[in-house]
Amino acid sequence: MRTRPLKVALLGCGVVGSEVARIMTTHADDLAARIGAPVELAGVAVRRPSRVREGIDPALITTDATALVKRGDIDVVIEVIGGIEPARTLITTAFEHGASVVSANKALLAEDGATLYAAAEQHGRDLYFEAAVAGAIPLIRPLRESLAGDKVNRVLGIVNGTTNFILDRMDSSGAGYSEALDEATALGYAEADPTADVEGFDAAAKAAILAGIAFHTRVRLDDVHREGLTEVTAADMASARRMGCTVKLLAICERAADGQSVTARVHPAMIPLSHPLASVREAYNAVFVEAEAAGQLMFYGPGAGGAPTASAVLGDLVAVCRNKLAEATGPGESAYTQLPVSPMGDVVTRYHISLDVADKPGVLAQVATVFAEHGVSIDTVRQQGKDGEASLVVVTHRAPDAALSGTVEALRGLGTVRGVASIMRVEGE
Amino acid sequence: MRTRPLKVALLGCGVVGSEVARIMTTHADDLAARIGAPVELAGVAVRRPSRVREGIDPALITTDATALVKRGDIDVVIEVIGGIEPARTLITTAFEHGASVVSANKALLAEDGATLYAAAEQHGRDLYFEAAVAGAIPLIRPLRESLAGDKVNRVLGIVNGTTNFILDRMDSSGAGYSEALDEATALGYAEADPTADVEGFDAAAKAAILAGIAFHTRVRLDDVHREGLTEVTAADMASARRMGCTVKLLAICERAADGQSVTARVHPAMIPLSHPLASVREAYNAVFVEAEAAGQLMFYGPGAGGAPTASAVLGDLVAVCRNKLAEATGPGESAYTQLPVSPMGDVVTRYHISLDVADKPGVLAQVATVFAEHGVSIDTVRQQGKDGEASLVVVTHRAPDAALSGTVEALRGLGTVRGVASIMRVEGE
Repeated sequence: MRTRPLKVALLGCGVVGSEVARIMTTHADDLAARIGAPVELAGVAVRRPSRVREGIDPALITTDATALVKRGDIDVVIEVIGGIEPARTLITTAFEHGASVVSANKALLAEDGATLYAAAEQHGRDLYFEAAVAGAIPLIRPLRESLAGDKVNRVLGIVNGTTNFILDRMDSSGAGYSEALDEATALGYAEADPTADVEGFDAAAKAAILAGIAFHTRVRLDDVHREGLTEVTAADMASARRMGCTVKLLAICERAADGQSVTARVHPAMIPLSHPLASVREAYNAVFVEAEAAGQLMFYGPGAGGAPTASAVLGDLVAVCRNKLAEATGPGESAYTQLPVSPMGDVVTRYHISLDVADKPGVLAQVATVFAEHGVSIDTVRQQGKDGEASLVVVTHRAPDAALSGTVEALRGLGTVRGVASIMRVEGE
Repeated sequence: MRTRPLKVALLGCGVVGSEVARIMTTHADDLAARIGAPVELAGVAVRRPSRVREGIDPALITTDATALVKRGDIDVVIEVIGGIEPARTLITTAFEHGASVVSANKALLAEDGATLYAAAEQHGRDLYFEAAVAGAIPLIRPLRESLAGDKVNRVLGIVNGTTNFILDRMDSSGAGYSEALDEATALGYAEADPTADVEGFDAAAKAAILAGIAFHTRVRLDDVHREGLTEVTAADMASARRMGCTVKLLAICERAADGQSVTARVHPAMIPLSHPLASVREAYNAVFVEAEAAGQLMFYGPGAGGAPTASAVLGDLVAVCRNKLAEATGPGESAYTQLPVSPMGDVVTRYHISLDVADKPGVLAQVATVFAEHGVSIDTVRQQGKDGEASLVVVTHRAPDAALSGTVEALRGLGTVRGVASIMRVEGE
């Protein structure tokens, strides 16, 4: 084994960073044996240097992250600060100054992964980011490497723990969205400002990363259709139950049937209780991958948290260090297919639509006509009436989303339709 | 991209080999783009050269596998013939003559992996074998690489599809073992001679491979305690149901509580219906991995079959070819912990025991005394009597297997115990 240690700079020392530093210290011998050389924490860049950080030599702490990545003797930079800047500049600067990078930064990778990949390639460095998607669950490496000889057609997953916790609570207790969010906040599953989670931004970033890797093409955050779960109601959840389904916030990346384009989207959807994703509880994550030869694979585990995310970071650290010692690099960007990303309107899916309608003869015929005019075929209709009001629950067959949403718009214009109580896609069948 | 192709020799052209050859042809452009160079099938060694092999140039077919691996211009040998010899000699000869190896040979890796690793290391070649365990499910790479910065404490999995199919049928239809085996045979899930599957040899080989990688130590097939499922009865399955459990053939690899030894075993066990492994149906495989930082991960998918296994082989082929081009090698054997493998008697587990006893006063006291004398604490007892006969169902607390099996031996010697109707371990709680 080489005795001269590999030097690691840690950018960020919050929940994940402090756990990375802790494990690097407590498991130093194991890491050295697996890498073939010891690793040394050479510097830790933080915003608040005065905070006490147990187990970290205060001499390593700096507020000057730029100077740290420019030192020139750093082998690997671990970036766990998140956000676009200064993370992007720090990473590209690290590449310029001889370091490879392990990052957990999903927002940056989804926003501008191409710049990072290009800089890594230009300087002959590694860019690894297992921790950016689904925490500890090995997902990036299986997609980039294990399935490199296969053709992935679909990725369908629960990639945000906060929203899964909220939906699980709504499902199991009948709570409304606000009540479930309050519980998630109280238990530390949701942040004080939950926007990134509940509006689906976090899941959309992960969908962009997964789609890009799965389909060997570039997919950016802007390419991902995104709907959050703030409008999911206890009534939606009850409707789902009546259909033998539950509601999950899904990230779905698909290759079009003709293979000539891809789509990526995040939205709440009803999935059958018999689907393995339906039984993913609390803040757990799980991702289904459908590949041509492999068939259906599922990866399940904790999608967030300091220790699980640190596990993913350290797995990447071992790989990047091994590559350094071998003077090689791992797989870089694979975007050779250059498939276009189609808009949401082209996605083929099914809708579950609840309408409040006037309780009089002919309403169903009117409604059915609107569906037919838009080329949308109806699977089932359930009609309930009371006190002159009635509700119609329509589940469609598969159709392009544009036709489905066009149908809903036209329904809103019907005089006999008092309102559209809920619309939700049905997936996983 | 490099234009000179990498040359691949295929040893074996059965269910898996023919699928590998097919995908190498139909997806040649994708493989070339992902590797950075084209790959060319340079030779296919078979036993029966006269058989028609669609899509394979007859000029590539040879019966002389040794000459093929000695050609000197082969970059990668794919070994899918199975068995110990001639596979072992062919693989080591391939290493000597410049090739890296992708193998699906679980029996050989479990029996003598050390020889293969040493030969690969000596000649600076790669040995990859994702396909040897759980077919298409990425498991070896996640354990070797993704979790390389973590500490795995337990691997618990369903790694044999044939036996899972049989147990699933017994569970869902109430069929006995023979009947379920017949159905598995008729549907092609069981081979004409099902011994390797039903006696647990196949699962034990996989357990040895998984334990070795998970714990960074050498575990051979002989180190794995093995019990098949031929003695599992419809009555056992019914007992499991009454306890809220089902029966699965599990491969279990554990680090001892003190961290100083490991165990590996394969046997039928009751697991709670709430455990994710309980809902793994038909011939699917699934493996739970518990790691210190990552927590509980699960990997699920098809565990066998031509196309899924070929997917794993081709993923390895891409990795090995990339390494060749980079003049590097992937991770080799990691056995630095050198932990001893403890015998089954040291494993801490729980027993579910059904006894046929005389229906008279004092029997329970006698039985309870035997448990106490062996230091085994009883969790629950259920007593049923009719016509002078009675049955006692005892579920124990956790105890060393030696104490549990000693208890059972002593119970057999009691005059009031007419017979031990069934013994099964309880796991996954």
